[in-house]
Amino acid sequence: MAGVSTTETTNAPIPINETERLIASDKVGGTAVNNRQGGRLGEVYNFMVDKLTGQVAYAVMGFDGFLGIGERYHPLPWKTLAYDTRLGGFVIDLTRDQLERAPSYTLEETPWAGPKYGRSVHDYYDIP
Amino acid sequence: MAGVSTTETTNAPIPINETERLIASDKVGGTAVNNRQGGRLGEVYNFMVDKLTGQVAYAVMGFDGFLGIGERYHPLPWKTLAYDTRLGGFVIDLTRDQLERAPSYTLEETPWAGPKYGRSVHDYYDIP
Repeated sequence: MAGVSTTETTNAPIPINETERLIASDKVGGTAVNNRQGGRLGEVYNFMVDKLTGQVAYAVMGFDGFLGIGERYHPLPWKTLAYDTRLGGFVIDLTRDQLERAPSYTLEETPWAGPKYGRSVHDYYDIP
Repeated sequence: MAGVSTTETTNAPIPINETERLIASDKVGGTAVNNRQGGRLGEVYNFMVDKLTGQVAYAVMGFDGFLGIGERYHPLPWKTLAYDTRLGGFVIDLTRDQLERAPSYTLEETPWAGPKYGRSVHDYYDIP
């Protein structure tokens, strides 16, 4: 329970543990999302986090270069994603065609207010 | 796999499920942190999220009204926190005295770069 000096680690060598694993919630935006075919699908806009368990339920993905009004955001269930530390981004087994038919919304919409929206997203990706 | 209409839920009644459970990662800031004695300790500044598991590892707390230069931020292991849906905030079993001796850092410091920082935080709170 001794006091912890936080300054002693400021000049630490290249991070090999915590920062490989941890990302600040206000810095998740922009993380790449690729598919297993090697294509870039987009980038993370934000995470939807379960307040009771602390588990990220969805990574919401936007398309590169089309952020803003009219842009469609795709919620991807966490279980569909794998974080690739080498790429520094997420990988998902999803073609562009499958993505285009997937649930999405604009920033003018508030789909999460509906209790069944999360269920419909999970159903699309065949996640129990 | 049918297309999902996101507009049909826009005028949904008071959210009872998803929004009770989910919060966007860019909206976690400001969530209250109280202690079990009923006092308000501060508010969430951000979450530190494990990129591999999607589990929030720490809620980083700042003090109300003292954000900014010189302000100290306290990382609280997720396991020390309970989300109280009635209060709309987190509750932790921690006195102000214990908080004052707890690990903290300023925004000018980058303690997470050190591989042992997370361990030291967990040790302070007696979390395995």
